[in-house]
Amino acid sequence: MEKITILDTTLRDGAQGEGVSFSVEDKISIVSALISLGIEYIEAGNPGSNQKDQELFKRINAPGLVAFGSTRRHGVSVTSDPGIVALDEVNCGTVAIFGKTWDLHVREVIGCSLDENLAMIYDTISHFKDMGREVIFDAEHYFDGAVSDSGYALQVLATAREAGADILCLCDTNGGSIPRLVYDMTCRAMEKGCQIGIHCHNDIGLAVANTLAAVEAGARHVQGTLNGIGERCGNTALSTVIPNLQLKYGFSCLTEGQLSMLTPTARHVAEISNMSVGNNQPYVGVSAFAHKAGMHIDGVMKLSKSFEHIDPETVGNSRRILTSEIAGRTLLASRMKSVLPSITRDCAEVRQMMDRLKQMEYDGYQYESAEASFELLVRREFGLHKPSFELVSYKIIGELPPADNCTASAIVKIRVGKRDALTAGEGVGPVHALDNALRRALESFFPVISSMRLVDYKVRVMDSKAATGAQVRVLITTSDGENVWTTIGVSADIIEASWIALVDSIEYGLIKSNGS
Amino acid sequence: MEKITILDTTLRDGAQGEGVSFSVEDKISIVSALISLGIEYIEAGNPGSNQKDQELFKRINAPGLVAFGSTRRHGVSVTSDPGIVALDEVNCGTVAIFGKTWDLHVREVIGCSLDENLAMIYDTISHFKDMGREVIFDAEHYFDGAVSDSGYALQVLATAREAGADILCLCDTNGGSIPRLVYDMTCRAMEKGCQIGIHCHNDIGLAVANTLAAVEAGARHVQGTLNGIGERCGNTALSTVIPNLQLKYGFSCLTEGQLSMLTPTARHVAEISNMSVGNNQPYVGVSAFAHKAGMHIDGVMKLSKSFEHIDPETVGNSRRILTSEIAGRTLLASRMKSVLPSITRDCAEVRQMMDRLKQMEYDGYQYESAEASFELLVRREFGLHKPSFELVSYKIIGELPPADNCTASAIVKIRVGKRDALTAGEGVGPVHALDNALRRALESFFPVISSMRLVDYKVRVMDSKAATGAQVRVLITTSDGENVWTTIGVSADIIEASWIALVDSIEYGLIKSNGS
Repeated sequence: MEKITILDTTLRDGAQGEGVSFSVEDKISIVSALISLGIEYIEAGNPGSNQKDQELFKRINAPGLVAFGSTRRHGVSVTSDPGIVALDEVNCGTVAIFGKTWDLHVREVIGCSLDENLAMIYDTISHFKDMGREVIFDAEHYFDGAVSDSGYALQVLATAREAGADILCLCDTNGGSIPRLVYDMTCRAMEKGCQIGIHCHNDIGLAVANTLAAVEAGARHVQGTLNGIGERCGNTALSTVIPNLQLKYGFSCLTEGQLSMLTPTARHVAEISNMSVGNNQPYVGVSAFAHKAGMHIDGVMKLSKSFEHIDPETVGNSRRILTSEIAGRTLLASRMKSVLPSITRDCAEVRQMMDRLKQMEYDGYQYESAEASFELLVRREFGLHKPSFELVSYKIIGELPPADNCTASAIVKIRVGKRDALTAGEGVGPVHALDNALRRALESFFPVISSMRLVDYKVRVMDSKAATGAQVRVLITTSDGENVWTTIGVSADIIEASWIALVDSIEYGLIKSNGS
Repeated sequence: MEKITILDTTLRDGAQGEGVSFSVEDKISIVSALISLGIEYIEAGNPGSNQKDQELFKRINAPGLVAFGSTRRHGVSVTSDPGIVALDEVNCGTVAIFGKTWDLHVREVIGCSLDENLAMIYDTISHFKDMGREVIFDAEHYFDGAVSDSGYALQVLATAREAGADILCLCDTNGGSIPRLVYDMTCRAMEKGCQIGIHCHNDIGLAVANTLAAVEAGARHVQGTLNGIGERCGNTALSTVIPNLQLKYGFSCLTEGQLSMLTPTARHVAEISNMSVGNNQPYVGVSAFAHKAGMHIDGVMKLSKSFEHIDPETVGNSRRILTSEIAGRTLLASRMKSVLPSITRDCAEVRQMMDRLKQMEYDGYQYESAEASFELLVRREFGLHKPSFELVSYKIIGELPPADNCTASAIVKIRVGKRDALTAGEGVGPVHALDNALRRALESFFPVISSMRLVDYKVRVMDSKAATGAQVRVLITTSDGENVWTTIGVSADIIEASWIALVDSIEYGLIKSNGS
């Protein structure tokens, strides 16, 4: 199968989506998830426009990391352009440089001559080639440019190629082009004899179709964001286009094993981004293989391909029969093996666990990113979990004006064996106070707890239309310095949801520290 | 411009989407919204499988209403098939009849001979034609059928045409077909000399592209659901495909005036369906024309088409320049005009406001989605805001086990002028309790508050590596039935962050209700 290379720009173009904001820690977690998935190029940021991105490139140095920036500015030399200097300083084998391709933009937005724009492109690319970098040239507004003045658009590509660009990526920046045009223009660009890439936006719902049209015309490099986030209507969703290329068009992007990690990775990256994968997102959404109409259920039970275009497990998703049950048992059995090593997909325990899982998901739980809570759920379901402690009660007080500079305090009473412990804690918020009080209560019984530290805390309001009375999902990530694990709690009350996740976090840590 | 007729199946195929459920009242409201928009055919339900739908067709009788059903069953005559009888009884000029087209389904799902299936199709369609009805024949699984046995698939179409079907609609029921195949197969179907329609599902993200491919091949009837809801990954989104057909392909679907109602209608239908239009939904989403990156904002302000593929007002949407520190002074001045009408970009107030904005963003505020809080920030900065009330104190108690089934209660003391009010509230969580207590305290002073309702509540933990001590950003959206506004609060304490956003929400509502 012919290879297509993939570039994910969640951290750069994705970050331009409304409401998206990544911390440096978020970015590092996403880079690691994308590397595990097998993505070749990860465009991590724009060090010339953003100090946080400079810090990011100092902290990580993975192969495949791409730093993004502009051609030199009009009237400024390459060596005195602060954007280029920032890219020079980044320790990164590949740079993506964007340049203007649409004559209208050159004249009316940056206000320089068409020739000067070509010089800006040539100088910038040759500068980075002289440094030994791989260069991806992003031809901004390629298709609008080619419609307006196709000779100039092709001249831009020729200039970039002469300067040594390794990949010429055609961008549908405004997202308003149609597949026939993308196909025709990509065919013409192919004549420039360089590797051609494609970068689309979804403003008319055709980002995936345009990407495929470019590949049909010969493009072998595809850009997008894993979950399709990005400016306005978003970028090409790689979680859709990768399985399309691989399963429908016969190209190779990922190994089979990597492809089966697509759904969990998409959900994990969404979770870090504090968003959720749309329920009806192709391939990776929770409803993507969910059957509701009776006739469809009958059909699918007789013959899965009667209402399913692929086997959901190919992409790590699972079938859901909304009125009855039967779903991804092989996958579930494999996830239960950490607790029940000899289990197989046909065991009664798998069916029982499937029922429990469906009920928990109905209540708002999702275990893709909370493997520690999933393991505890299995242990509890089969009587294999002996709780280390019991909650007798907690009381939290939040107040303004703050008492002694503290807006929250908590009282926790727990029981270990036959002994009770009653402790108090303060904090900057109710959950912080609760966490402090709980740790203080438990440390005398389990000294190992002092090595466990909460490293991440995320809150998601579900069904947010119910406003402050809605269900809240809390995810807590804990580290003991060596291992990292994530737990989940769901409740209409954020404090209770946090409590559930905190308890799981400590119970799981205690199990692991006992080597069981 | 050549005409394309549109059929909306929100109420039938859309109702098969996970989590979708319509009452008869909901259905009647949606029919009325779709008629106003100018949709020719509205598939309202399946009276043979659903009693609620029988009632619906009794209560409304609009031109263009379509009743949906199956061909007669295998081994049963038309007049004794209860599904057909139910359709007979419906007073509806048009029926849509679906029949099997894929040999595999005929043999292995319904289990009859290929000839018997043709007879079922012929008998059913001629029955309704004899009654003088218009008949749309939905050729289920057309593309999978045509790949498996193209001769048989074409024979199905020929049979339906001979029986008198007015429109032969090719369905990509499993949603896994690609545009090239849809185009080729539609070209072949066109040779049957009947009007061809297209009905796609979005399982591989190509429903819109496949619909357009069929239209390029000659189809002139398009089916979908306004917001793309439907089984699994949904149906073709008409809110995307209609403007594409009209603005990008030069066909006529709606009048210009109707097209400019697309965005409000999509949002209204979503509201009735108890869902929301996705922020990044093409054409109709709130982010569809939202600009965030500084360079894009500069471009769009110089020349709107530099980063917009159409004028947003064509489809009843509007441009949004997201307020952030990267946005520049021209924009900031234009956003300040609602409070300071005579301000220009070079005024000292703009520089002062820019400094304030940078400081607030550094603290974790983001005003791009919180326009009401932005307006209050401007008012406060220039001494133009007189608070309606002051907080004296609040105390929140959260507890487990719950007291009287309530995990949270709150005490709030506020001051209006020289009068204090002390009230209590309960809730399912601390913020809910606080909200209840605050409203109770304020309603006696400001009765208009009873019309304000929180419609959305979002929580984002920032720099979440600080775990439960991290900064929390809360966004609250409020509606008074006519207007909707969003406010923001940031604090390390989720209760305090929610308080800040709640106060802004009420202050802004009071300013607007005073007409100032």
